[in-house]
Amino acid sequence: MSDTSWQDRAAAKRRQQLESIPKDWVLPNLPPRSQLDVNEYPRTCGLLTAKEVQITESSVETLLVNLSQGTWSSVEVTTAFSKRAVIAHQLVNCLTEIFIERALERAAGLDEHFKRTGQVVGPLHGLPVSIKDMLMIKGIDTTNGYIGRINQPAPKNAALVDILESLGAVPYVKTNIPQTLMWGESYNHIFGRTLNPFNRNLTAGGSSGGEGALVGLGSDIGGSIRIPAAFNSLYGFRPSYNRLPTTGGVGSGVGQNTIYPVYGPLTTSMDGIKTFMRSILSKEPWQYDPLVIRKSIVPDPPVTRGLEIAKAALLRAGHKGEHFLQNLQPVALLTDSPFILEVIDWKPANHAELCRLGWEILAAGGSADVDAVLATSGEPLIPDMSLEVENFDAEAWQNVKNTQVPRPGLTTHELWQLNGKLRQLRHEYHDQWRETISETGTGRPVDAIIAPVAPFVATPHGKNRHYNYTFIWNVLDYPCCAIPVGSKVDPQLDAKRPRASFCGDADRQNWDSYDPNDFMNAPLSIHIVSRTLEDEAVVGISEVVDNALKARESAI
Amino acid sequence: MSDTSWQDRAAAKRRQQLESIPKDWVLPNLPPRSQLDVNEYPRTCGLLTAKEVQITESSVETLLVNLSQGTWSSVEVTTAFSKRAVIAHQLVNCLTEIFIERALERAAGLDEHFKRTGQVVGPLHGLPVSIKDMLMIKGIDTTNGYIGRINQPAPKNAALVDILESLGAVPYVKTNIPQTLMWGESYNHIFGRTLNPFNRNLTAGGSSGGEGALVGLGSDIGGSIRIPAAFNSLYGFRPSYNRLPTTGGVGSGVGQNTIYPVYGPLTTSMDGIKTFMRSILSKEPWQYDPLVIRKSIVPDPPVTRGLEIAKAALLRAGHKGEHFLQNLQPVALLTDSPFILEVIDWKPANHAELCRLGWEILAAGGSADVDAVLATSGEPLIPDMSLEVENFDAEAWQNVKNTQVPRPGLTTHELWQLNGKLRQLRHEYHDQWRETISETGTGRPVDAIIAPVAPFVATPHGKNRHYNYTFIWNVLDYPCCAIPVGSKVDPQLDAKRPRASFCGDADRQNWDSYDPNDFMNAPLSIHIVSRTLEDEAVVGISEVVDNALKARESAI
Repeated sequence: MSDTSWQDRAAAKRRQQLESIPKDWVLPNLPPRSQLDVNEYPRTCGLLTAKEVQITESSVETLLVNLSQGTWSSVEVTTAFSKRAVIAHQLVNCLTEIFIERALERAAGLDEHFKRTGQVVGPLHGLPVSIKDMLMIKGIDTTNGYIGRINQPAPKNAALVDILESLGAVPYVKTNIPQTLMWGESYNHIFGRTLNPFNRNLTAGGSSGGEGALVGLGSDIGGSIRIPAAFNSLYGFRPSYNRLPTTGGVGSGVGQNTIYPVYGPLTTSMDGIKTFMRSILSKEPWQYDPLVIRKSIVPDPPVTRGLEIAKAALLRAGHKGEHFLQNLQPVALLTDSPFILEVIDWKPANHAELCRLGWEILAAGGSADVDAVLATSGEPLIPDMSLEVENFDAEAWQNVKNTQVPRPGLTTHELWQLNGKLRQLRHEYHDQWRETISETGTGRPVDAIIAPVAPFVATPHGKNRHYNYTFIWNVLDYPCCAIPVGSKVDPQLDAKRPRASFCGDADRQNWDSYDPNDFMNAPLSIHIVSRTLEDEAVVGISEVVDNALKARESAI
Repeated sequence: MSDTSWQDRAAAKRRQQLESIPKDWVLPNLPPRSQLDVNEYPRTCGLLTAKEVQITESSVETLLVNLSQGTWSSVEVTTAFSKRAVIAHQLVNCLTEIFIERALERAAGLDEHFKRTGQVVGPLHGLPVSIKDMLMIKGIDTTNGYIGRINQPAPKNAALVDILESLGAVPYVKTNIPQTLMWGESYNHIFGRTLNPFNRNLTAGGSSGGEGALVGLGSDIGGSIRIPAAFNSLYGFRPSYNRLPTTGGVGSGVGQNTIYPVYGPLTTSMDGIKTFMRSILSKEPWQYDPLVIRKSIVPDPPVTRGLEIAKAALLRAGHKGEHFLQNLQPVALLTDSPFILEVIDWKPANHAELCRLGWEILAAGGSADVDAVLATSGEPLIPDMSLEVENFDAEAWQNVKNTQVPRPGLTTHELWQLNGKLRQLRHEYHDQWRETISETGTGRPVDAIIAPVAPFVATPHGKNRHYNYTFIWNVLDYPCCAIPVGSKVDPQLDAKRPRASFCGDADRQNWDSYDPNDFMNAPLSIHIVSRTLEDEAVVGISEVVDNALKARESAI
């Protein structure tokens, strides 16, 4: 904690904010506080030219048409909106971070691009957008009105800010929120209170209260888009959970996975809502998360042979696959043209950490549920799946009983920390997946993964103790399909292979316990995996692989 | 707890199970336990006729074609699969509940229907399906292998069982699982251990281990579909979270909302996977959840007037709406033909309870996050949004400080109980929504709701304290769009109206505090709401309503 009092630190930040406003936009003739309705003031104060009034009162559609035809430049549109936002701020105190200079630089770059190529960079080319304070913008604070977060510039953009910029939009201001974000009004110790432009004695609403007085991007966990929209005569849309990415949004309750906060637009027209949603969705926001695998146990020989058979079958069917199984990695599939699969290398990451988190989360509720149902009959908890547990005897029961200590589980706060960490790791996966676009040559990231289902085929009873090869996809929520390879364990083909090194104790134990004779006749299998909600792709690609395997079988 | 020992209760249940097998299907000539590969036995044991072997080794596609053409009756197909399942059970111990008589009755009904109408009842007409033990089937136990759950017949079907039956499928057996469901093998104190038919010294996998030896419906939270599929040379598909309904599935960790269990098929072909998924999705499984509202605060006059204006505008534009605003209920919209909206009555339910649960869940993490960020600067927590908090003084600070008791929050187990309750209430909403199909006359349930955004328009600062009108849709995850009505508060039109009764203290306080003069110039607004992921419908219908409102405005 700094030696300066929190009041002084807040005041310093407010001074910085004032300094971020161009000097000649600071208005000397502001209406008295007793004037409640200030909607007319921006038009009449003299700071906006007639054209700037026209620009700032145009529909999103009109703005985009004029920007895309070069009728209006992004610099003049951004200037007009910046002026109007600064006027509004002086009337109703709606802004937090103000970065007009930076926005104008970006606008000039967009104008230059348009001049040079005759093309827009995207459907929102040159359009100024305001952003609720909680969304990270690289190099700018994300205080959410907390004094303790002053002067901590964000290391990167929120996913939605990245998407908006890739669409051509121009962020220029961030907007006010309440301390804790959990109020339907907007007041905090740094930026003060946002007023309603229709009647300054009324609230502008919250928690996207600053957006209520302008137009831009808000968030909603209990009405925080719709309340400011309703209170300020705007249109405000709350999409379903997980339609738009939330990564890079800062708030309390990270990891609270029940009632998700969502982001959405506040605009002056339905057209604005439609344009916003259509544009964002055109960038496939579901691309903003990926997938990887890091093996801590190397598969047994028949498992690897299953992958090799799948490779051979695919090559035989005309698919391409030079990198297949290189270094025993799982492989990424991509459909080059319809039904032609190609495989590329895959860089593993964070598999072990994701699974560890996953198991911790599943165990977080403690043993109360199981304890309760066992208590209804007095039957003991089964300590593992080994053959010994089948023949219950009183002595063994004493041992079991001693291991059956009720687990208390975690607190909700601890659980949410884990959920937050999982959210972050899922995002890193997404990023890595999305980045394969540079390797595939198809203009798309990889479509699917072929991976083992387990490090072993069906084990002797009591020995199936390593589930991470399947669990990783549950943790990432990637749909997947196990399919048979059409071959069984063969002591000759699947002989134990010497290993020079091991990934750890579990890997060594698994290798130690492999003897092909123990696995006689067990079938070989693989599984096809793709990203969340790509269920249809998984089924389609599984069918292609299955057909190739079948063709191979009948050719043998 | 019963006086009988848990061992005796388990033995009694196993005797019941044995009695549920037709006497002449109990095989005298079973292979010795030392015979490991028992795949050939069903074909050669003499119990199956040649035709029954043919039927039970047909692909799902072939079965459905023959059933839909009447070449094979459902009774003969169900008999064949029942026999084969019972043979398999005697070899590898894969079943829990066996209800062949009931299945044959259903099959006979389907055959009769086909004979009478020449039509199938659905795409899975007459197809026998096995069901993992954890899914409820009305009148049958869902023990999950727990002795304490013996003789507790399910009060109703799981949603997926309902859907499968509506598609024409014939459930006939339930299949084995491990105690706690959290193992990759299948052993419990009631039904014992399931073996692998390729090599009985090997595990059939788990937790859908009984399914691994047959074909049917499993579930997967860590590999429980794919592991048994891989270990038994089957196809096993794990869809994304929430593609298929999970209601009526019994398991521990209910309310654990991070790594969801999902249901999916295990079959003998990719074709089976595709048929299963396509059939289920054709029943729009997202219809299996709904929406309602129960107001605890009656809206202020301008809010009601906003709804009345929307009604008038819609009627003026040719839409129909005789029930609109009857009893001040929110109204359900349905699109009768493209862009013609009709409104019907709406029966409120559980709004207050859903919101109460929602707030409890949001608060479950305690105050640690907020406490930590406030501690970084020493600034106090803002106790509410009233104007008084803007002028900090040391004395007030003492009062604030006294109210700032860190909240410890809930345990994860407590949170999951709330999540489980919320899951149940969301399901009741879904059911109610889906049932409006009988009232609409369109063959579809209602498409959307028009509802207030708040019980008030923009309030004086510090008075916006009731968020449930918006929060209800966050809790249900229903997308929604606030749109302006194009009118503002008018002390004449929006005069305070006498009320004879109140819904409670909050309602009375809200009525007490309403004075139109305090709300001068505040804009009127409404919001359009539809079901989860119907985001496009919300935007589309909002546009229709907005156009009607605009047409009205320009006509005034």
